[in-house]
Amino acid sequence: METVSENACFGGVQGVYRHSAQSTGCDMTFGLFMPPQAKRGPVPLLWYLSGLTCTHENAMTKANAQAHAAQHGLAVVFPDTSPRGEGVADDAAYDLGQGAGFYVNATEAPWAPHFRMWDYISEDLTRVLMANFALDEARQGITGHSMGGHGALTLAMHLPERFASVSAFSPIANPTASDWGRKQFGAYLGSDETLWARHDSTLLMREKGFKGEVLVDQGNSDQFLDLLRPEALSEAMAARRQPGVFRMQPGYDHSYFFVSTFMGDHIAFHAEAMSGE
Amino acid sequence: METVSENACFGGVQGVYRHSAQSTGCDMTFGLFMPPQAKRGPVPLLWYLSGLTCTHENAMTKANAQAHAAQHGLAVVFPDTSPRGEGVADDAAYDLGQGAGFYVNATEAPWAPHFRMWDYISEDLTRVLMANFALDEARQGITGHSMGGHGALTLAMHLPERFASVSAFSPIANPTASDWGRKQFGAYLGSDETLWARHDSTLLMREKGFKGEVLVDQGNSDQFLDLLRPEALSEAMAARRQPGVFRMQPGYDHSYFFVSTFMGDHIAFHAEAMSGE
Repeated sequence: METVSENACFGGVQGVYRHSAQSTGCDMTFGLFMPPQAKRGPVPLLWYLSGLTCTHENAMTKANAQAHAAQHGLAVVFPDTSPRGEGVADDAAYDLGQGAGFYVNATEAPWAPHFRMWDYISEDLTRVLMANFALDEARQGITGHSMGGHGALTLAMHLPERFASVSAFSPIANPTASDWGRKQFGAYLGSDETLWARHDSTLLMREKGFKGEVLVDQGNSDQFLDLLRPEALSEAMAARRQPGVFRMQPGYDHSYFFVSTFMGDHIAFHAEAMSGE
Repeated sequence: METVSENACFGGVQGVYRHSAQSTGCDMTFGLFMPPQAKRGPVPLLWYLSGLTCTHENAMTKANAQAHAAQHGLAVVFPDTSPRGEGVADDAAYDLGQGAGFYVNATEAPWAPHFRMWDYISEDLTRVLMANFALDEARQGITGHSMGGHGALTLAMHLPERFASVSAFSPIANPTASDWGRKQFGAYLGSDETLWARHDSTLLMREKGFKGEVLVDQGNSDQFLDLLRPEALSEAMAARRQPGVFRMQPGYDHSYFFVSTFMGDHIAFHAEAMSGE
């Protein structure tokens, strides 16, 4: 693992690091905020998964996470959203290929060799983080925005032993029924739609739900409401009697101005859930 | 004035607007955060002047200002750092021309026709803001980062009737003795160095100081300490017995991770100064 940069921030350190990942077969870059409390021992870790077109950097600079993470003593990791590099397949569209990994393991050409973001997050990056930083592996939470909200919810429901808490900002909530999902699952996973279901938060919520509370924020002025389908997830949460809160926030859109506004609530939510284990 | 965008943010509105400015002879873009309290009547206004290479956008998305502005009921304006456009002079260097206006009125060719950022901030933009938004003209404060800290300090010391409070993050503190200053003042103002003095915070502090308290934050791991010359300003503040605080923050560098860390302190400082009028 190589250190790209480290900046003092809210008494802790905002770092950027690069490592070679087996899953994606390329170098991967991530941001990690370590709070001041980490100087005294391992701290809980919150994963923040980003949305379409983002790198590790967007949320790290725009999401207002570090102030609250320092207050609550959480580390926050900001992974990239796809494999990248010259040998990695790509597409001219913003919503397929590099910057649009969708947190799945691709099985189809030309994506299969590198687009294994599910394994990257749940295996490679987890291993790198635990080996190199003062993090408490037993206390992890996960959140994300848009495509990253989809990733957070699906990873948490499949790996409940790993994540004590899950939340999402305007997640792609029902990708098997949306153009943000059908296109990508078709490309990455092939035409058998039964294989898509394990990557759809609404379907997973109907099937298994999450062991702890779930927090979802959605702006009602979001320009992508038709693609996100929050109503499907909200219905599934209520039908399952899933403990948690689905908040429809009046006037907010899909931007980081929305994410940053409610980041404090999400970090407090995760801090409480992780301390309560 | 034209609305470029408006996003809900911390219960208020983060807007971006464009207008034609007489001083700079071109269209200018600025960001403005209006807090939720503005729905009930005019609110105080904090100016945030940005540094070299920045547009209106950098601090608006990275400085962590809106959370604290909403808490204290302040508006925050994020002006651009220079005139821009095809007919506007420029230079290949990052620290001269577009993105590097230095908050002066240029008198020399080729800069004089457009590079009048002093007048733009103190006249044109002030007029546009007061005419179009629920702002209390009698309660204004000013801050900024690096070149913008220089702008904030020099504007406040020259216009004490305008600004109730001033602060700065790692300001270019003594530009007449620095390569961040001598090069630009020579280009914009000509070779008569006596004309440069009114744009040097350290010299102004020696000559007149500021009527209220002054807050300055500087990181001691700043990669530009030699160019910023904080020791000159600190000495001048102490020699003048200027009420205020100069804080040397251990471990912090010149980045927005530094600015965002201490933004809450600065906004609280301005809110208190403006409410105490």
